[in-house]
Amino acid sequence: MLDLIAPLVTSNESKIVLLSADGLGGLPRPETGKSELETARIPNLNRLATVGACGLLRHVAPGITPGSGPGHLGLFGYDPLRYLVGRGVLEGLGIEFDLRAGDVAARGNFCTVDGAGLITDRRAGRIATDLCVRLTERLRTVTLPGVEVFVEPVKEHRFVLVLRGAGLGGRLSETDPQALGKLPLPVRALDTASARSAELVNTFVDRARTILADAAPANMVLLRGFDRLPDLPRFPEVFGLRAAAIAAYPMYRGLAKVVGMDVLKTGGTFADEVATLRQHWQSYDFFFLHYKDTDKAGEDGDFDAKVAALERLDTFVPDIDALKPDVFVVSGDHASPSVLAAHGWQPVPVVIHSRYSGADPVTAFTERACAGGTLGILPAQHLMPLVMANALRLTKFGA
Amino acid sequence: MLDLIAPLVTSNESKIVLLSADGLGGLPRPETGKSELETARIPNLNRLATVGACGLLRHVAPGITPGSGPGHLGLFGYDPLRYLVGRGVLEGLGIEFDLRAGDVAARGNFCTVDGAGLITDRRAGRIATDLCVRLTERLRTVTLPGVEVFVEPVKEHRFVLVLRGAGLGGRLSETDPQALGKLPLPVRALDTASARSAELVNTFVDRARTILADAAPANMVLLRGFDRLPDLPRFPEVFGLRAAAIAAYPMYRGLAKVVGMDVLKTGGTFADEVATLRQHWQSYDFFFLHYKDTDKAGEDGDFDAKVAALERLDTFVPDIDALKPDVFVVSGDHASPSVLAAHGWQPVPVVIHSRYSGADPVTAFTERACAGGTLGILPAQHLMPLVMANALRLTKFGA
Repeated sequence: MLDLIAPLVTSNESKIVLLSADGLGGLPRPETGKSELETARIPNLNRLATVGACGLLRHVAPGITPGSGPGHLGLFGYDPLRYLVGRGVLEGLGIEFDLRAGDVAARGNFCTVDGAGLITDRRAGRIATDLCVRLTERLRTVTLPGVEVFVEPVKEHRFVLVLRGAGLGGRLSETDPQALGKLPLPVRALDTASARSAELVNTFVDRARTILADAAPANMVLLRGFDRLPDLPRFPEVFGLRAAAIAAYPMYRGLAKVVGMDVLKTGGTFADEVATLRQHWQSYDFFFLHYKDTDKAGEDGDFDAKVAALERLDTFVPDIDALKPDVFVVSGDHASPSVLAAHGWQPVPVVIHSRYSGADPVTAFTERACAGGTLGILPAQHLMPLVMANALRLTKFGA
Repeated sequence: MLDLIAPLVTSNESKIVLLSADGLGGLPRPETGKSELETARIPNLNRLATVGACGLLRHVAPGITPGSGPGHLGLFGYDPLRYLVGRGVLEGLGIEFDLRAGDVAARGNFCTVDGAGLITDRRAGRIATDLCVRLTERLRTVTLPGVEVFVEPVKEHRFVLVLRGAGLGGRLSETDPQALGKLPLPVRALDTASARSAELVNTFVDRARTILADAAPANMVLLRGFDRLPDLPRFPEVFGLRAAAIAAYPMYRGLAKVVGMDVLKTGGTFADEVATLRQHWQSYDFFFLHYKDTDKAGEDGDFDAKVAALERLDTFVPDIDALKPDVFVVSGDHASPSVLAAHGWQPVPVVIHSRYSGADPVTAFTERACAGGTLGILPAQHLMPLVMANALRLTKFGA
């Protein structure tokens, strides 16, 4: 898809806003038969659905529940089955560690081992975060030949390990046996390109064992979710857009940065994000604006909180509209139905409004109504080409 | 798709019923402008459509009419363009011959040749089935080096030839010149892996000519539709399901067996099948339940009979519902519109009902209504992932 798009890209003065309401889609609550979107009072989103073209986005494949990585990569135009972002990398992005292409990252846990080295607590009693900080400082003293080593605290017993160097493969098995009473496992390379990484990581773990020997309950480490930061085509170059990301949460800033967007400094609320959008309106062509509250409420299984989050989001739609974007898109990275209290596989409503989007019979921004829209059910990575077309930023394919 | 699913599969206590109404989809009868589904009184299926999520299944590609093999493989989650089941194999499955991975099977016809060996009747005057049985017994005396030879009667002039042995390719040309007054053709290997098979089959045909010399009108054989039973990923392992098939017709039992489902003994009616379902409810996670009458009526071009078959099917829906499956899916393997009196290429209605299926605007289980459902128009092999998701048997993709 990106290979198809890139040669067609042309430039103009248009402005695009892509508003991602995290975990937007929902499911009917059994008591009322209505979903969160169907329950919420969202006149501005409904008006947008009325004047724009609607549909449903499917981020990976039918029945597949997307994580936040694949969900957002899809929205940014990348095939999430081709460009995979592993847990270690996401954890690094989540603390805004400056990950670079080729870095190998893993999620780390401090754990407790007994005198024989057998694991007695996989989370070291969830040590306090400040102890985690001090222990990661100790681990930073480990040096490995030919690579840089970064050990970054996350929260409680969790940290991130990053190796930086040329030619490091990231396909490694995990050291966590996922059970008590066992020894941590040595790392194995899962492809030949990762043989050196495996050796380096095993050396790191050996040194860590020595360094932490006196630090019970946090006297050992477990490493999981190894991955290499994928070398993604850069969004601003593929789409010819000066692109900015506005997101209060680190992980989404990280994902935007990985594809090469400028990440704008903003405050902790969505009102702050909209203010940031207004402030930088002249400097960019494309804005990725992230709203987190919908996902949080959905994952908490709090139907009413999700309805309230949608209603709050709705009140900001006129402020964004007032900037007169040439293309205004609202969708999400995945569903988070309150009745599931988790990410869901359901396709997610999308509306595109531009002078050229056309209208369709849809007059409500809901799962059910959008199923009847002219965009149909669309793989998420096809959204960006549509957005570009609506911005008149794509020339014709073929003579 | 199967590679994507397998690592996401998780286990729980849920029960899944996949009801395949063979040849389900239809077309409007010109006199009324209504299809079989639109004409039938099917309150239970319509209620299921109202509470569940609906769509249309496309089994191969737009405009492509699926045979029963690709139709069912699609329903079972296999890409029917990747996993091909040839005619010889289907014919073997249709008589419940115990085909094994690697077996090479062909459809055989007894035919009549004249003194010069030229074909005068490609079907040997459609000899009686009991004569066919006796002649296949004669052919079983043929032995070939290093392989087992099976010759199984089907009906009238038709039989099945199976070669079993290591390393037999199944890409062979046919011996039937499809015309009278010609000699049967020698078999040619269509790839190098099939060279030995070609030699063995040509030897078999030579022996058959001698053995049948006195058996006019059935004094020669023609062989077509050579294929090797594909080594399919096993359904119970791919999806982590204890899977049972309940089907009165041999071919569907055979297709289920080929993918590794347990085939349950059942009677000849759909009432028997539902009784079998009830009886084995505790022992399996997944039930493939096959209803044949819809296809039979459609292929006969009997619109009223198909309407009646749909109405009969509808009366069993409450019995299945009473078992409280966690996921209840109704669809079919292909359309068999009565106005075509044959399989059709039209997409086939599908409904999925679970606690998490969501509802959509669809309130009737018809081709037209299901086109507006939230499942959209779905490749058939994407149904199983959706079913698994609805059973909460798939974890999230990507972090």
